[in-house]
Amino acid sequence: MLNMGGPSTVAETHDFLKNLFMDGDLIPLPMQSMLAPLIARRRTPQIEKQYDAIGGGSPILRYTRLQGERMAALLDELHPETAPHKAYVAFRYARPLTDETAREMRADGVKRAVAFTQYPQYSCSTTGSSLNELFRRGKAGEINDVQWSVIDRWGTHPGFVEAVAQNVERALAKFPEATRQETVLLFSAHSLPMSVVNRGDPYILEVSASVAAVMERLKHSNPYRLVWQSQVGPSAWMGMQTGEALKGLARLGRKQVVLIPIAFTSDHIETLYELDLEYAKEAREHGIEVHRAESLNDSPVFIRALADIAAAHLKDVTTGQAGPTSIQMALRCPGCTNATCGQQKAWFARGGR
Amino acid sequence: MLNMGGPSTVAETHDFLKNLFMDGDLIPLPMQSMLAPLIARRRTPQIEKQYDAIGGGSPILRYTRLQGERMAALLDELHPETAPHKAYVAFRYARPLTDETAREMRADGVKRAVAFTQYPQYSCSTTGSSLNELFRRGKAGEINDVQWSVIDRWGTHPGFVEAVAQNVERALAKFPEATRQETVLLFSAHSLPMSVVNRGDPYILEVSASVAAVMERLKHSNPYRLVWQSQVGPSAWMGMQTGEALKGLARLGRKQVVLIPIAFTSDHIETLYELDLEYAKEAREHGIEVHRAESLNDSPVFIRALADIAAAHLKDVTTGQAGPTSIQMALRCPGCTNATCGQQKAWFARGGR
Repeated sequence: MLNMGGPSTVAETHDFLKNLFMDGDLIPLPMQSMLAPLIARRRTPQIEKQYDAIGGGSPILRYTRLQGERMAALLDELHPETAPHKAYVAFRYARPLTDETAREMRADGVKRAVAFTQYPQYSCSTTGSSLNELFRRGKAGEINDVQWSVIDRWGTHPGFVEAVAQNVERALAKFPEATRQETVLLFSAHSLPMSVVNRGDPYILEVSASVAAVMERLKHSNPYRLVWQSQVGPSAWMGMQTGEALKGLARLGRKQVVLIPIAFTSDHIETLYELDLEYAKEAREHGIEVHRAESLNDSPVFIRALADIAAAHLKDVTTGQAGPTSIQMALRCPGCTNATCGQQKAWFARGGR
Repeated sequence: MLNMGGPSTVAETHDFLKNLFMDGDLIPLPMQSMLAPLIARRRTPQIEKQYDAIGGGSPILRYTRLQGERMAALLDELHPETAPHKAYVAFRYARPLTDETAREMRADGVKRAVAFTQYPQYSCSTTGSSLNELFRRGKAGEINDVQWSVIDRWGTHPGFVEAVAQNVERALAKFPEATRQETVLLFSAHSLPMSVVNRGDPYILEVSASVAAVMERLKHSNPYRLVWQSQVGPSAWMGMQTGEALKGLARLGRKQVVLIPIAFTSDHIETLYELDLEYAKEAREHGIEVHRAESLNDSPVFIRALADIAAAHLKDVTTGQAGPTSIQMALRCPGCTNATCGQQKAWFARGGR
């Protein structure tokens, strides 16, 4: 189960940031190995405060482990041909990192594994970076002779869509019935620098498709917008920004908003701090009543969706209906100049050989 | 049937450009009534050459009339309760303009009308501008006492999706069966300035949703990207650009591409000149075999979709299942500062009163 991860304790914040700024697939920096520790050190105190404010750390590891365990149990029933199943977590920037997970898999004698991204929508900055890391470790022989296949995106899977829609409905139900239909559904996803969008990254399209699918499932009961959060630095990022959108809605006289995280599946700092403690708070100061749709966390509908996605994948690969990677994954971004991406895609297409 | 239109003859090019640069909903210019004619005059010779190159004018009026007539005939069968139906064309920048159409509707004594956008996906720059113009004319009493309702978007309607998918399949069939699966599907839509995207325009999401729906219908048979064409001027627009994407695919060694117009329903200069005579030609020089998916034009599957969309709308409005406008249409962009948009939405929500 691949994800970016987050510091489980405040003390891990610095290492998390250092790993993040060291990731040349995410943020290519000149003299990265010198610059990354400097930037990480400078940012640490502020980010530590944020983790303090949300209870002393990110719950992403706890939720990912829980999701993985329950998914694996369901998988044993749904696809007994490949049982027993066991879920491992490999985070890109926090423990357990890929090398730690690799040791665990070696100790267990794993021979067959699925690289299952926990980002519903594909971006080279997220799933792409995780797959590149797995490829580097795998090619270096750190994970043993494992036969690999990849679940690279699932942002319009009906089970995922249903799980999100149910959480939206629960948030909507907090508004009085008389005015419920006027509530604006504000889907918010982590933004992406336009430099990444403009090289052909598929993330914007896939997040959009997720939102469209959720709205279809909700029978277009409410007006909505997809907006983008967590932009940093001076360069251009995909907009409209979540904070600006809330201010704009207040200006237009809108009084009720449901905030919906659509590209994260567990709570972490972007939901618990940025959405709840920054944007929602600010919106309330502008006179808007805001309820946030819960993150998927331990949603049984979501965990069943994960199991369904994995079972369908295992069936398709086992019966030869599909190769180790999706047809879409084989296509590099037209503007891609990262050679690792090409090698990684070829390596996984050969089952990790 | 609302659309931007295009000059039916080369001689109409100047007037078309003048109308376009006069549209403050599309391009707000300082001293617009002085500046617009100047810009139009300066651009006219080059654009005339493009209309010359595609046969002496845009076929959009011919196709829109044909689509409208056949749709109206189908509607008489599908929804006899509101028969007889008649299709009128109202273009934003070319004849017939809204005032000409209004005269025709007055002469016919029309009492009930549907403003049916022919842009599948909603943008304030396209459908929004057409609705603003219709509102201004209607409010000024130029169209008589008509009861209005609006079909404002239909980019994921299964009939539309089916019609596009069939044209993609026909283009794909031109490649040898052995390598067909390696063909890249390059969906191309008219780009939008980031200033419009960043105020919360829903176009990027809706075009993305159309592409996702077509790929779902095609069972993800091929790798794909959504890219953006027709950017002009120095400011930032949504990318990746279509021309850049084709160059990038050539660099990555891709040899087969289907180009798919996803936000236009008839041929016009963006398909016949820009895609066919510019981008496809350039891609061939880079060693790529390119086939363009046909525009929907006289596709019977598409015309049936238009009739189905209109019939469902008439049924919903007549039976009170839906109001004169969609729930989504009522929400202005969070960053909108165009007062006309607010007045227009309120006016149509009251049935054009």
